[in-house]
Amino acid sequence: MSDIYQESLALHEQLKGKVEVVSKIKVTTPEQLSLVYSPGVAQPCRAIAEDQSKVYDLTWKQSSVAIISDGSAILGLGNIGPAAGLPVMEGKAMLFNQFAGINAVPLCIETSSPQEIIDFCCAVAPTFGGINLEDIKAPECVMIEQAVQKRLAIPVFHDDQHGTAIVVLAGLINACKLTKRDLKASRIVISGTGAAGSAIIRMLHEYGATHITCFNQFGNVVAAKRDSYDFVVQEICGYIIDQPEISLTQAMNKADIFVGVSAGNILSEHQVASMNDDAIVFAMANPQPEIEYDLAKQANARIVGTGRSDYPNQINNVLAFPGIFKGALRVRAKGINQAMKLAAAHAIAGLIADEELSDTNIVPSVLDPRVADTVAAAVESSAQATGMCA
Amino acid sequence: MSDIYQESLALHEQLKGKVEVVSKIKVTTPEQLSLVYSPGVAQPCRAIAEDQSKVYDLTWKQSSVAIISDGSAILGLGNIGPAAGLPVMEGKAMLFNQFAGINAVPLCIETSSPQEIIDFCCAVAPTFGGINLEDIKAPECVMIEQAVQKRLAIPVFHDDQHGTAIVVLAGLINACKLTKRDLKASRIVISGTGAAGSAIIRMLHEYGATHITCFNQFGNVVAAKRDSYDFVVQEICGYIIDQPEISLTQAMNKADIFVGVSAGNILSEHQVASMNDDAIVFAMANPQPEIEYDLAKQANARIVGTGRSDYPNQINNVLAFPGIFKGALRVRAKGINQAMKLAAAHAIAGLIADEELSDTNIVPSVLDPRVADTVAAAVESSAQATGMCA
Repeated sequence: MSDIYQESLALHEQLKGKVEVVSKIKVTTPEQLSLVYSPGVAQPCRAIAEDQSKVYDLTWKQSSVAIISDGSAILGLGNIGPAAGLPVMEGKAMLFNQFAGINAVPLCIETSSPQEIIDFCCAVAPTFGGINLEDIKAPECVMIEQAVQKRLAIPVFHDDQHGTAIVVLAGLINACKLTKRDLKASRIVISGTGAAGSAIIRMLHEYGATHITCFNQFGNVVAAKRDSYDFVVQEICGYIIDQPEISLTQAMNKADIFVGVSAGNILSEHQVASMNDDAIVFAMANPQPEIEYDLAKQANARIVGTGRSDYPNQINNVLAFPGIFKGALRVRAKGINQAMKLAAAHAIAGLIADEELSDTNIVPSVLDPRVADTVAAAVESSAQATGMCA
Repeated sequence: MSDIYQESLALHEQLKGKVEVVSKIKVTTPEQLSLVYSPGVAQPCRAIAEDQSKVYDLTWKQSSVAIISDGSAILGLGNIGPAAGLPVMEGKAMLFNQFAGINAVPLCIETSSPQEIIDFCCAVAPTFGGINLEDIKAPECVMIEQAVQKRLAIPVFHDDQHGTAIVVLAGLINACKLTKRDLKASRIVISGTGAAGSAIIRMLHEYGATHITCFNQFGNVVAAKRDSYDFVVQEICGYIIDQPEISLTQAMNKADIFVGVSAGNILSEHQVASMNDDAIVFAMANPQPEIEYDLAKQANARIVGTGRSDYPNQINNVLAFPGIFKGALRVRAKGINQAMKLAAAHAIAGLIADEELSDTNIVPSVLDPRVADTVAAAVESSAQATGMCA
């Protein structure tokens, strides 16, 4: 067990929960008790019963998000169940609080079907201003998010899909600026078609990228084999170039960009070395990237990003979700559409001024205090401009 | 709108949520982020996956309670729905935090059947150490609580039933001590057979009370009409004296104790005046009691209790629920049995020393800081003694 794991376990034993629910005021007199609880509390209740929208003014709903997971795809650990997923959801709740001042509640749930997750989300919705789905396995997660959003008029966001896609796009925008590339015309190879991979492909397609080749554990994804794919990969077939099946080695030859959200060590130095000059490699498998940062650099990749905090260019969705929910909650958006996600990506990219942009500085630090508010403002404007506000 | 209601509305507008979810530590370095979140957090996740009981040591579960309501019986306001019930649940969460240091999360849910409430509770259970059901209408609430407890090995407690029953019993124990009565042999009249009324009757029966007469909106409850009652009232028929149907006026004549959890102004001065000497009247309908405090005293009741904070002897379940959950969570009790509830009642009663006991001081103040810990200790011992700990 490496140091970081041992240290984390000890910290969790010590903290006994990383977030807590605290009262904003202390009740010291019977009169106060009568105001915050029975009988006085009947009045805000009545006000909401008469006008449901008042729940935003009189309760925590306006600044609250449920983090819902069934524990079926926790980090790289797989389906370890709801209890074992709780430390991740608590961690996420911490970050929501610290970066966006949001009351985020970890809700790890025991379910046996996607429909039960959908029903749970819809049942709990009156209490929260938004729903963050987390660590739910693909492809079900895509269908679950769509179904929940269809039934609810609050933002629903599966972070493993869109949070990652937004930060990848932000990083690619800046990496292309630095390497004087047109992202839309670049040859892009994606490894992974799960929650993150499929969302990245969808987002790049929306952005205008036209030359996307993609791979998953079964090899090259091609339209000719469409019928053998699950519904998510079938959708992706519409966003990739139509070509005969090729190998990853063939695809990497003369590629401009590699984005990996798949598995450790699946990319060789030779493959990276065969890419075009000024190659961009985002190897984000956790904890072991598709290719080590140093190896990719040695193989002549110019800009390398990973999911890790111990190398430059950390592609971390902490850059996205706090600001996205902060903005969406502030304008009471009915959902989070593609325009809002693109706006978030541009906002993250825009935080690196041209003169600061470098091969090792294409995205802001996850601890940069400007990030959440900048993202929130962009998401807010986009929501208003695209008719997403009530 | 009276002052207290206006003031409460203004306070809720100002607070915008009475509780908040906050992080216990602030993340200031990438290293810290790696410990509380990915990748370090994988270690506590793995530890729980290997041994599910570790979730108590490594997460907030050990000190967390879900406050679940469908909004079908909010205060005296009736079925106003989940959003309108949220201010009450937030108020309850405040009190859990202040009095017991418990992380209580308000979860107001949109459902259309008791089975959906049961399924919701079971789904969310991995996240919490206990479940507090709240403001769910009778008789469904009784069945819901039983079904949830049957499926889960964590404490499940419908406060409107048992919280009230526990505090009523505590008050009656002290009132009987003061009036030199044997509660078990006293003539008791109960008005109300809903969530609170049925639990009070069940609890008095468990305590040993033998002469209970009871009334609801249809009149005197008698065993002869058993088949016309819902399942909760049918159960009550086993705990009351078997007699021909009588009127409330007849029942009150020579009664020792009246306990009302029904509706305002249903009890007259004449009826109270016809009770035995040193009569005990708990008129707890909210906000309007069955008989006003002053009228009951004028009618010669010796000890009068209400649910209100502006009169002596406030029978408030805030005296019970924080300590009950604190004790039950501390020993990881599998449930909350009748012995634990009786222990809580005795603990509350015992907080008034003999020399402090008076007609206007039969239960501690809801703000008495000793209450929660005293109740917790009693509940803890009782859980251990009755085999309720894992």
